[in-house]
Amino acid sequence: MNKQKSTAILLMHCPDQPGIIAMVTNFINVNRGNIIYLDQHVDLEQNVFFMRIEWELQDFTIPRNKIKEYFETLYASKYQIYFRLYFNDYKPKMAIFVSKISHCIYDLLARYAMGEWNVNIPLIISNHPDLEPVAERFYIPFHLHPITKENKHEQEKAELTLLQEYEVDFIVLARYMQVITENMINKYPNRIINIHHSFLPAFVGAKPYHAAFERGVKLIGATSHYVTTDLDAGPIIEQDIARISHKDTVETLIHKGQDLEKIVLSRAVEKHIQRKILTYKNKTVVFN
Amino acid sequence: MNKQKSTAILLMHCPDQPGIIAMVTNFINVNRGNIIYLDQHVDLEQNVFFMRIEWELQDFTIPRNKIKEYFETLYASKYQIYFRLYFNDYKPKMAIFVSKISHCIYDLLARYAMGEWNVNIPLIISNHPDLEPVAERFYIPFHLHPITKENKHEQEKAELTLLQEYEVDFIVLARYMQVITENMINKYPNRIINIHHSFLPAFVGAKPYHAAFERGVKLIGATSHYVTTDLDAGPIIEQDIARISHKDTVETLIHKGQDLEKIVLSRAVEKHIQRKILTYKNKTVVFN
Amino acid sequence: MNKQKSTAILLMHCPDQPGIIAMVTNFINVNRGNIIYLDQHVDLEQNVFFMRIEWELQDFTIPRNKIKEYFETLYASKYQIYFRLYFNDYKPKMAIFVSKISHCIYDLLARYAMGEWNVNIPLIISNHPDLEPVAERFYIPFHLHPITKENKHEQEKAELTLLQEYEVDFIVLARYMQVITENMINKYPNRIINIHHSFLPAFVGAKPYHAAFERGVKLIGATSHYVTTDLDAGPIIEQDIARISHKDTVETLIHKGQDLEKIVLSRAVEKHIQRKILTYKNKTVVFN
Amino acid sequence: MNKQKSTAILLMHCPDQPGIIAMVTNFINVNRGNIIYLDQHVDLEQNVFFMRIEWELQDFTIPRNKIKEYFETLYASKYQIYFRLYFNDYKPKMAIFVSKISHCIYDLLARYAMGEWNVNIPLIISNHPDLEPVAERFYIPFHLHPITKENKHEQEKAELTLLQEYEVDFIVLARYMQVITENMINKYPNRIINIHHSFLPAFVGAKPYHAAFERGVKLIGATSHYVTTDLDAGPIIEQDIARISHKDTVETLIHKGQDLEKIVLSRAVEKHIQRKILTYKNKTVVFN
Repeated sequence: MNKQKSTAILLMHCPDQPGIIAMVTNFINVNRGNIIYLDQHVDLEQNVFFMRIEWELQDFTIPRNKIKEYFETLYASKYQIYFRLYFNDYKPKMAIFVSKISHCIYDLLARYAMGEWNVNIPLIISNHPDLEPVAERFYIPFHLHPITKENKHEQEKAELTLLQEYEVDFIVLARYMQVITENMINKYPNRIINIHHSFLPAFVGAKPYHAAFERGVKLIGATSHYVTTDLDAGPIIEQDIARISHKDTVETLIHKGQDLEKIVLSRAVEKHIQRKILTYKNKTVVFN
Repeated sequence: MNKQKSTAILLMHCPDQPGIIAMVTNFINVNRGNIIYLDQHVDLEQNVFFMRIEWELQDFTIPRNKIKEYFETLYASKYQIYFRLYFNDYKPKMAIFVSKISHCIYDLLARYAMGEWNVNIPLIISNHPDLEPVAERFYIPFHLHPITKENKHEQEKAELTLLQEYEVDFIVLARYMQVITENMINKYPNRIINIHHSFLPAFVGAKPYHAAFERGVKLIGATSHYVTTDLDAGPIIEQDIARISHKDTVETLIHKGQDLEKIVLSRAVEKHIQRKILTYKNKTVVFN
Repeated sequence: MNKQKSTAILLMHCPDQPGIIAMVTNFINVNRGNIIYLDQHVDLEQNVFFMRIEWELQDFTIPRNKIKEYFETLYASKYQIYFRLYFNDYKPKMAIFVSKISHCIYDLLARYAMGEWNVNIPLIISNHPDLEPVAERFYIPFHLHPITKENKHEQEKAELTLLQEYEVDFIVLARYMQVITENMINKYPNRIINIHHSFLPAFVGAKPYHAAFERGVKLIGATSHYVTTDLDAGPIIEQDIARISHKDTVETLIHKGQDLEKIVLSRAVEKHIQRKILTYKNKTVVFN
Repeated sequence: MNKQKSTAILLMHCPDQPGIIAMVTNFINVNRGNIIYLDQHVDLEQNVFFMRIEWELQDFTIPRNKIKEYFETLYASKYQIYFRLYFNDYKPKMAIFVSKISHCIYDLLARYAMGEWNVNIPLIISNHPDLEPVAERFYIPFHLHPITKENKHEQEKAELTLLQEYEVDFIVLARYMQVITENMINKYPNRIINIHHSFLPAFVGAKPYHAAFERGVKLIGATSHYVTTDLDAGPIIEQDIARISHKDTVETLIHKGQDLEKIVLSRAVEKHIQRKILTYKNKTVVFN
C-alpha cells in the first residue's frame, strides 16, 4: 500500500510481435530502472499484446518528464504501441456521483477515510439532496444538481465545469440514477465507472432485481463497467454473484444485492486507481 | 442414501391459509405416521403455500394405496391443494438424451454406477452414434435416432414409444443438441431437465460461450431448468458460475464450463429424484 | 425491513417428539395469531427439534406480556422446551468494541446510518483512541478504556457497568484486539459476536494471515462466531472465503481479507438482530 | 487442447535479478522460437523469480535434444537457475492409486476417455479389489496390492517395480486410503498428487467430515497437494469449498464433499499435466 519509492507505470498494447517484452524490459534495464511488476497478455485471436510494467525511478537515468517522449520516439511510433504512463506518487482525483441510495458511497468513503487507496475525492455530485449528510460526515464538498428533462443539458454543463475546476481524473457512479449523456462520456472515455445491479448482460436497464425475481434465477449478480454511449454495455471490469433461493422476495434480493454492489464497485475502483486496467474493443484486460 | 424404511413424500401447494401446516401434520400424526422431514415456504406476494413433508409408513394406519384418495377427499378438494404423492421405495426411471459431447453423461452415469441416486436408467437416446461406447461401458441400451429436418416428427414419435415401453418417468437432456418439440414436452411437463451452458437469461440459444467471450464477461455460468415450449426459458432449478479472465479464450471457456455444466445438471437431477422440487408459474421451489 | 405490524418471534428447541409443530402452530392459530414465518430443523443425531416461528400480534388474544408465561405453563414445562420470545418492535441495543482497525466498524455503522437494521448502537468501547473520529462521524458516544495487563480486570468492570447503564443486549467485537475474560463472557452468553480473520478452525489465534501465507493456502477465510471461554472455538455463525494465489503477499492477504471480514461479521450481526440464530452445544442453527 | 505444433515448455526459478526476462526471451527469440506463453512471478519476500515460458519449435534453430544442455551452459549455471524442460508432444504417464471410493477415479477416467488431457494412464493400483470393474470399463490394467501392516514394505516395493516398468511419470492418489512411505515419496518428489477431503490445514488426518460436523463449520472444503513425508502438509495446489448449513449431517457432508473432491483433484492433475506448477519451499506457483 504505502510505497515509499517513486515508480513509473506503463500500460500498453500493440500488435503482437516477437521480442516486444525483451525490448521494453531492456529499455528499462539499460536505463537502470528496477522492474518491480510485469504482467502481460497476448490476445491470440486479435493478435494484440498487452502489458503492464512498473519500475522504480530512483536510479532511472531518463528524467521522469522525458520518459513519455523517449518511449514514444524510440518504440511507440515504430511498433504501433498505444500506451499510457503514470507515476505512483501522483494521486488521481475521483468524483463520485450519487442519487439517494448510500451503501456504495459509504463503502467508497470508508476506504477513502482509511487511506486504503491512493486517491483524492475532491467532490460529490448528486441530483438529490438526500446524501448531503453522508458527504458532510466525510468532509467532502457536496454539489447538488437536480436534474429534470428540461435542465439536463444545462446541469451536465455545470457539472463538467466543476469537474474541470477540481481537475477530476475519473468519475464513479455510485448508484447514480441518471443516464450520462454522450457529451460527458466523451470527455471521460473509459474513465467513468458504473455499478449495475445485475449480472450483465442479463437484466439490462431499470429494475433488474424485479426482473431477476420474475425470471426465478438462483443467483443474483452485480457488474461494474466503464460507461459508454450504449446503456449498460460498456467494457466489464468486475462481476460477482450471490446465491438466492425461492425464499427470497424482491426486497431481500435488493438487500442482499447491496453487499455485492458495493464490493464489486470498490474492486473496480481499486483496479482503476492502481492502473491495472487496459481497455480494448469494449473489453478489459485487468491485471492482478 | 440407503433409507431402509419406507416413506411417503407429499409435495403440495395451495392458497395460503391459517392452520394449513397444523392440519397436514395432524393428519399424519393422528394416523401414526412419523414425520422425518418437513419444509415449507410461503410466497407472500402470490399468497401461495408450498410444503414438502415426508413420513415413515411403518405404523401409518392408512394403507399406502389409499393415502392419495384420502388426502384428496379430506383436504385437497376442500383447500384447493395441488399435490403429488411419492414413495421412497419406488425407483423412478430416467432416460438420458445425448448428442456428441460426453462430460455430462459421464457424470450422470458415474453417479448411477456408484448407486448414488435412487434411480434407474433404462435407456439412452441419441441423435448421433458417437456416444454409444459410453453407454456400453455402463451397460445401458443405446438407441440411435438420427434427426433431420424431414424425419424429426417421426423420430420423436418413435422416441415417445420407446419412453412409454420403458415406463420412463423423466428425461435428462445431457447436452442434447436438438430442440424438443411441443408434443414431447407436453407429455413430460416439468419432467424434462435440460442444462444450458450459460447463466440464463444471459446468452439464450446457440453458442453461449462465444457470446460470453464477445461480451467480455468476468464470470461464466450454467443453468439447469425444466424444458418448456419457450426455448431456454423454463423454470430454473439450479445455476452456478466460474470466474474467468481476459486470459481465457473461447476454447478455455468451453473447457472450464464443462465442469460447471455437469455439476449443475447433476444437482438438478438429484433434487428431482429426491422429490424436492415444486414448480409454480415458471419458477421452482427447491427444498434443501 | 420496515414491518409496520407488531410480531412475536419464538425461538425454541426441545427433545424431538411427534406433533410438536402441530401443537405450537395450533397454539398460535386458535388464539388468532397470523403466522408469517415458520422454519424448523430436526437434528436426528441428537434428537433435538429447533424452530423459529413469527406471528402477527394484531388479533392475538393473549396479551403480549402474558405470552411467555402461557407458553411456559402450557407447553414449555411439559415438553422440556427451551425458548426465547422476542417482539419485533423492540430495538435491541448493540455495543461495538474496537481497537485500531476500522473496516468492520465502518461497515456496521454505515448500515446503522442507513437504517438497514432494527438496532440501536448506544456506545462504542475501545482500548485505543484511534477510532474516536469514526465514532464522532456517526454521533455515537466513544468510551476509551486502555487496557494493560495490570488494569484489565478493573477496566472490564468499568465496561460492564457502562454496558448495564446503556442496557446493552449484545456486543460486537469489530476487530477488537483483546481477549474477553470469562466474567464478561458469562454475563453475555451467546451474545458476544466476534470476527476471526481466518477460516476456523484453521489458523486459530494471532496473525492468521501470516500463518495462511506460510502454509501456502489457495483460499483465505473469515469466521464470525459467538465468544466462549475457549479462544476462537465458540459456535460458528457464518464463514466465507476468497480465492488467492501465489502472487499474494501477507499485505495483499490482509487487504483482501478486510472485505471478507466486514461482510461475514455484518451477516452474523444481521442474523442475530433478526433473531434467527439458535445455539446448541457449541453449534448454531441459523434460519434463512 | 489439440496443439498441432510442437512446443518446448521451460519452468524455472532463480534468485531475482534485473534483466532475467529479457535474457530468456532473447535466447528464444534470437534462435527463432515463437513464444506463445509467458507468465512470471517474483516472490519479493524471498527474492525469487519464477517463470513459465512456452515456444514453438518449428523454426527454432537449436535441436530439441540440445536445448537443455545449451540453456544449462549459457544461463542456468551462471544465474543459479533451477529449471525443467518439457515438450508438449510427449504424453506423460500417470498412475492412479485407489481404494474403495470411486467418485474421483470416475472423474479422472471420464476426462481421460474424452481425451481432455495430454496424458496416458497405463495402470491403476489398488489395495482393495472393489474398483476393478471401474478399471475394466475404461480398459486400464488394474493391479491389486492388498496392504497389511506386515506386507506394506514389500507391497510398495512391488508397486515401485510396476511404476518403473510402466515408466510412470507421476502418481494420483484418488482417495487412496493408505499413507505412502518415505521411500516412494522420495522416488516421486512433487510428483504424487493427493486429494484431502478438508480445507487444509483444518482437519488434518482421518475423518475430516466428522470433525467438520463436530466443529459446526458453515463451509466444507477439499485440498489437492503434493505428497511429502509430512502427512497432509505438502505444497497445496488447489482448494475449493462448498456452503453447508445446520441441516447437513455427516452423511450429507460426505455426499456434498464428493463433488468438491473430484473437481479439486482434477484441476490439480490438469495443471500438473500442463506443466503449470512450480514448487518452492513447500508452496506452489500455479500459472494460469
